[in-house]
Amino acid sequence: MNEVINEELIEIGKSAKRASKVLMTLTKPQKNEALLKIAESLIAHSADLIYANDKDIEKAKAKGTSEAMIDRLRLTTERIEGIAEGVRQVVALDDPVGEILSMKERPNGLMIGQKRVPLGVVAIIYESRPNVTVDAFALCFKTSNAVILKGGSDALNSNKALVNVIRETLLSLKISPDAVSLIESTDHETVSALCRMNKYVDVIIPRGGSGLIKNVVNNSTVPVIETGVGNCHIYVDRDADLKKAIPIIHNAKLQRLGVCNACESLVVHSDIADRAIPMIAEDLAKENCEIRGDEEAQRLSSLITKAVEEDYGTEYLAKIISVKIVNSLDEAIEHINKYSTGHSEAIITENYSAAMEFEKLVDSAAVYVNASTRFTDGFEFGFGAEIGISTQKLHARGPMGLNALTTTKFIIFGNGQIRE
Amino acid sequence: MNEVINEELIEIGKSAKRASKVLMTLTKPQKNEALLKIAESLIAHSADLIYANDKDIEKAKAKGTSEAMIDRLRLTTERIEGIAEGVRQVVALDDPVGEILSMKERPNGLMIGQKRVPLGVVAIIYESRPNVTVDAFALCFKTSNAVILKGGSDALNSNKALVNVIRETLLSLKISPDAVSLIESTDHETVSALCRMNKYVDVIIPRGGSGLIKNVVNNSTVPVIETGVGNCHIYVDRDADLKKAIPIIHNAKLQRLGVCNACESLVVHSDIADRAIPMIAEDLAKENCEIRGDEEAQRLSSLITKAVEEDYGTEYLAKIISVKIVNSLDEAIEHINKYSTGHSEAIITENYSAAMEFEKLVDSAAVYVNASTRFTDGFEFGFGAEIGISTQKLHARGPMGLNALTTTKFIIFGNGQIRE
Repeated sequence: MNEVINEELIEIGKSAKRASKVLMTLTKPQKNEALLKIAESLIAHSADLIYANDKDIEKAKAKGTSEAMIDRLRLTTERIEGIAEGVRQVVALDDPVGEILSMKERPNGLMIGQKRVPLGVVAIIYESRPNVTVDAFALCFKTSNAVILKGGSDALNSNKALVNVIRETLLSLKISPDAVSLIESTDHETVSALCRMNKYVDVIIPRGGSGLIKNVVNNSTVPVIETGVGNCHIYVDRDADLKKAIPIIHNAKLQRLGVCNACESLVVHSDIADRAIPMIAEDLAKENCEIRGDEEAQRLSSLITKAVEEDYGTEYLAKIISVKIVNSLDEAIEHINKYSTGHSEAIITENYSAAMEFEKLVDSAAVYVNASTRFTDGFEFGFGAEIGISTQKLHARGPMGLNALTTTKFIIFGNGQIRE
Repeated sequence: MNEVINEELIEIGKSAKRASKVLMTLTKPQKNEALLKIAESLIAHSADLIYANDKDIEKAKAKGTSEAMIDRLRLTTERIEGIAEGVRQVVALDDPVGEILSMKERPNGLMIGQKRVPLGVVAIIYESRPNVTVDAFALCFKTSNAVILKGGSDALNSNKALVNVIRETLLSLKISPDAVSLIESTDHETVSALCRMNKYVDVIIPRGGSGLIKNVVNNSTVPVIETGVGNCHIYVDRDADLKKAIPIIHNAKLQRLGVCNACESLVVHSDIADRAIPMIAEDLAKENCEIRGDEEAQRLSSLITKAVEEDYGTEYLAKIISVKIVNSLDEAIEHINKYSTGHSEAIITENYSAAMEFEKLVDSAAVYVNASTRFTDGFEFGFGAEIGISTQKLHARGPMGLNALTTTKFIIFGNGQIRE
């Protein structure tokens, strides 16, 4: 890798580590005032932000980027107001830092407690829209973490402008601007180098497509929280109420296509398949959704085309869904645990024991009975803004609110105790 | 790597994954009865276990292993009874699996709760005495996790015999014996391969020296919980009560040498150094403890030899300690955060504000005021047996009891809800 970039990266790591120590000393009102000021500054600098964003838009157009992608990239006065409103919503959230989770006196008189503290330095690697830049900073700052951002190269000018506004506002409040840093290098090796900076980075959160996430997981020596890839299933049980199943499937597949909690695969019990499959197929086909199924499913509806093995493992993020017919609840659970990415799965059933069995044995972050998988989301779960949805088992699983950006430490108050 | 070993390893991974699904369905009484039966079987097979252990002892002697190491390796009737007693103690612990941490109704009627569930498959790589084999199994089994063990080659025959007794007892109870597997290959590449089996292994816990731990962290794509390396500090503040400081330092350095919560480095405020240093040095020197200090410390006691930079970063695990004189609390905290491994640190002070500042800003798993660092331990903290002491920030920090072997999942009960 380019030596200069490497040195720049280490400098960013060091500065972030230093800043994280300062952030630990800020009071809750100081943090909230700074966030409110930043929300104001973003709006005040709308013209500059849009000017910088225009450069990204022009570049994207020149590259022949799709209109949908360009729309995701675009900043408008309204969207900047939305971003500022997001920051204000973070101000309103409970700050978990400093909470004592429990404190007990031991027989020897030691008082032992567990206290919620910041992680330190959080690195976030993302491909998404420029609003993630501000969201991620706000959540990390609220929990007294310094954040290192590595956004997509398409949004580089926008991200630079947004981070500049934040850093200047922090500076004006005499708070270390290194609370947020943006890595500007678009070199691919920069990500690899960042992933090995254990000395300065406490956790890496990749947000984006499965390629990005796999790359980070495979190369990182810094602890990683995997997010987001969702090959979500809905299982229509033998005892399903189809008046619930059809709207739930419709909602989970079609309400929004490009999201990780959309349903990508159906599993249907053979005892109900002859009634359920034609109804489901007709409902989805009306919205031009392609349905790929096994032989039995194809036999039950001419709207269904052939699924190959690979279909069952695919997160389509499009108007396509796969269907598998099974002969038992056990078979359904086994199929789901085999192909799922561990995000969100639902059973549709009126049978109490089937619901309980599914809830117990399906190994995913969110397991639903008779509801759409689309609810897996920080706001819908009642935490407010989220930093991502963890699909791994360590540290945090499911939508990650502010608590996921903290760790704990044991604090022990003694009066001279020694161990016998 | 050897193809045959690789295939064996994948077979072990698959079997463990399958077993983990079965373990999820066991009731708490079933798990406890199995553990009690295993404790009995271990005692009943004492002769076989000692016979197998003899082979390891002979090999170790032939290799010229030190008497201390051979003693650590040795199984006796009494020690096997101790191991069985350890299993019974795990039976007595609260089983956290299945606990609902919170459940709330959302405005749309969805009931959303968070439930404690097993991690799945836990791999433990260790170098320690054969008792770890049984301890680790018991803790994992109690939390419905399958465990893959990779012990040190010195204890291979002992570990095989112990695991055989456990597997046969499970089989006699019609519980999948793959709840525990031992990797017998002593090939170094086996560890690397195990560290990349993300498909079958949910978490890897390395227990042992810093070389082993570093190797696992650097090579693993499976999430890792780092344990144990402890370069622990005691800071003698300007306002320290030396009647507390001297016994605490004595205890923390000398009560047991080869442990991760032993004190390896002292930091002393310059205002108290001329009184404290001679007293500390005399007390430690009486026990033949070598003291390596900076210039100022050497000036204050002829018992102190020269410390080099490297000393401040060294976990001696021996009768050696380093000393650094500082001019302020801030300097003490900065020094500790720079050289510490994030395990356990203590301040000795009668000053309230200094105690609070130290407790807040020292970035370690356990931060003490006026007590020995030797208390960082599952039993001393009141959790019972521990699977290790985490020095990382994600998932678990400090002594890890049964909770650290669990994750959570969201369970959501609906009646047809779809997202608007």
